[in-house]
Amino acid sequence: MKSRLKRSNDELKADRPTSDELAFIPKTPIYFMLENIRSVHNVGSIFRTADGFGASKIYLTGYTACPPREDLSKTALGSDKVVPWIHFEDSLEAIDDIIARGITPVVAEQTIKSESIYELDFKFPVCIILGNEVDGVSEEIIRKVDLHTEIPMKGIKQSLNVSVAAGVAGFELLRQYLVK
Amino acid sequence: MKSRLKRSNDELKADRPTSDELAFIPKTPIYFMLENIRSVHNVGSIFRTADGFGASKIYLTGYTACPPREDLSKTALGSDKVVPWIHFEDSLEAIDDIIARGITPVVAEQTIKSESIYELDFKFPVCIILGNEVDGVSEEIIRKVDLHTEIPMKGIKQSLNVSVAAGVAGFELLRQYLVK
Repeated sequence: MKSRLKRSNDELKADRPTSDELAFIPKTPIYFMLENIRSVHNVGSIFRTADGFGASKIYLTGYTACPPREDLSKTALGSDKVVPWIHFEDSLEAIDDIIARGITPVVAEQTIKSESIYELDFKFPVCIILGNEVDGVSEEIIRKVDLHTEIPMKGIKQSLNVSVAAGVAGFELLRQYLVK
Repeated sequence: MKSRLKRSNDELKADRPTSDELAFIPKTPIYFMLENIRSVHNVGSIFRTADGFGASKIYLTGYTACPPREDLSKTALGSDKVVPWIHFEDSLEAIDDIIARGITPVVAEQTIKSESIYELDFKFPVCIILGNEVDGVSEEIIRKVDLHTEIPMKGIKQSLNVSVAAGVAGFELLRQYLVK
């Protein structure tokens, strides 16, 4: 029998830290804020992605679904139990908390002054703010937060699915953080 | 009334090319191959992402869902009508076609020799091969394709959702292509 090139799920799992071990591993100084995300599947997928790049915490605001929820945990594959999160009913209060902690908030939205995620000079720790699937980040948050970033679009559609955008932004920031 | 900072969906849409105009815009030399993707929602989301970074074509192999399908088009937001695609029942034949066209195939999988997507020296045109949600890319394709790449994982879970992985890989390759 030929040996496998692909590493098995069991092997890969053995390489990953356990929930207990994860507590001793430094997080990356990258945060998400999710404002009024409608789909619990998107929230679950973003938890999985946040675990993937070692996000420090997720701010859930407005009606964004929060753990514990079975449907969220299923999409998150249980990462909702290890990624720190906090809920604020009021998004503006979440921004106050983010700023008070010395974290730079950055809105992910196409605005009249947004800069490409590949060109904006990010300062860490940073919190990327992602908004509702249809309406995006609210205008009041866009007005309160100075820095706006966008993922460049090359085709006919004007945006990515929010959970895909979270992945693109999260890993690009991880890359920039590791390079800096 | 204060003017909006956020650009409206109508404004953003007006900035995007139409399907007809898109035909005259050069694609980025990045391809996807999707092998035995189980979820039609993942396929639709990957079409939307592929439109987003201007992918040249998507190879759909095995039982991966193909357009036209209403459920696929709904998640793809119609981008399945503008992103070129081709279906091969046999994944190995798809690889032959990719290589015959001078495209470098790269498996996205954690193998005994995979290199980080941030470190592998990609040659364009390139085709990123993504596999089934549970089993990943098949061992026969992994054996046939020399280059293997992985997205570094920092948390307890060993992988990303496949549509998120497609976004992270697609936009990272777009970035590398534009820098080179």
